[in-house]
Amino acid sequence: MTNPAEHPASGRDVRVEYSARHVHLSQEHQDVLFGAGYQMTRLKELSQTGQYAYEEKVIVKGSKDQAEVRVLGPCRAQTQVELAFSDGFKLGIETPLRVSGDLAGTGVCELIGPKGSVNLTEGVINDARHLHVSDKEAAELGLKHGDAISVRVPGETPITVHDVAVRVHPSFRMNIHLDTDEANAASLSRQGMTGTIVEVYPKRA
Amino acid sequence: MTNPAEHPASGRDVRVEYSARHVHLSQEHQDVLFGAGYQMTRLKELSQTGQYAYEEKVIVKGSKDQAEVRVLGPCRAQTQVELAFSDGFKLGIETPLRVSGDLAGTGVCELIGPKGSVNLTEGVINDARHLHVSDKEAAELGLKHGDAISVRVPGETPITVHDVAVRVHPSFRMNIHLDTDEANAASLSRQGMTGTIVEVYPKRA
Repeated sequence: MTNPAEHPASGRDVRVEYSARHVHLSQEHQDVLFGAGYQMTRLKELSQTGQYAYEEKVIVKGSKDQAEVRVLGPCRAQTQVELAFSDGFKLGIETPLRVSGDLAGTGVCELIGPKGSVNLTEGVINDARHLHVSDKEAAELGLKHGDAISVRVPGETPITVHDVAVRVHPSFRMNIHLDTDEANAASLSRQGMTGTIVEVYPKRA
Repeated sequence: MTNPAEHPASGRDVRVEYSARHVHLSQEHQDVLFGAGYQMTRLKELSQTGQYAYEEKVIVKGSKDQAEVRVLGPCRAQTQVELAFSDGFKLGIETPLRVSGDLAGTGVCELIGPKGSVNLTEGVINDARHLHVSDKEAAELGLKHGDAISVRVPGETPITVHDVAVRVHPSFRMNIHLDTDEANAASLSRQGMTGTIVEVYPKRA
């Protein structure tokens, strides 16, 4: 294998973003939690096209504690709760490391909204680290969907995150998504700082 | 400069430990918080010789929130509160990155104990990452007090922590000390896992 530090993408800049715990609701669960026909209020657009944060939050309740968690839109086919490792520990909820959408057998919790509650029998995950990149940028960098990279994250206490999955899609803008545990470990004080790809491990054929 | 990955210590194993937020009290402050002559109760020995955790906790209060924080012994010349980046954010307390004992101009908080309270005018820090190593092991590895190293931390979501200061003392047992943000970023589930030194940046003469 080629030295993973000598890949053409090694040394390239990447925008670093991080997001706190959040929930994507199915339409069915949104109806239960907020009432059928309820119109959610958009708070802001997110960096990926067509995604937005709502003003609304729900309570995520585990075996030890509960917390308010922001809802993101639009609705998805299946409800997905994304927690950091520390959130799961504090709330008493299992957070298996998964790719978004791969929810079979993942963590359970109760969701509580203003109009009702849902016992979620699966759907809680620790979203696996990933890089979003457009097909055009991926081709320029020699990256392929499914490659694993390491990214050096700036901040007052810098870290390098390993096992970052490359996700390629025409609509994606290139950035790496961290959770709050990773952002805190780097002492990141703001969104949009510049990280560096330091290693590329091509997907095995 | 030599390639930092080609130093003799690069590739060497190191024990990984992490500690939650904690407080070292001066005798004067312990007397105020717990009463003069109060005998603290030892809960367990810590990995560094002569250090121990007490059963007692104090409340650390910032501008936004407060939290219970464990007291470590024995007493020190000056009270020192060690918080992770996320603790400081949540409590509303500045946590400058400092080496233990270097407290001039550091963060302020209120400490509240069962018998009294103290307005701490400095002493709250984010303890800078460090490796403890004995003089004998340091000599074997070619490490010197003040060198900076990078250490790959295992766990389900591995990270490498950079800017880890090497601290050499005859009494030290070799291990790296992380805080809870760093341990959570790596999804570390237990103490004493094995990390790897991956880079050494010798102290500039």
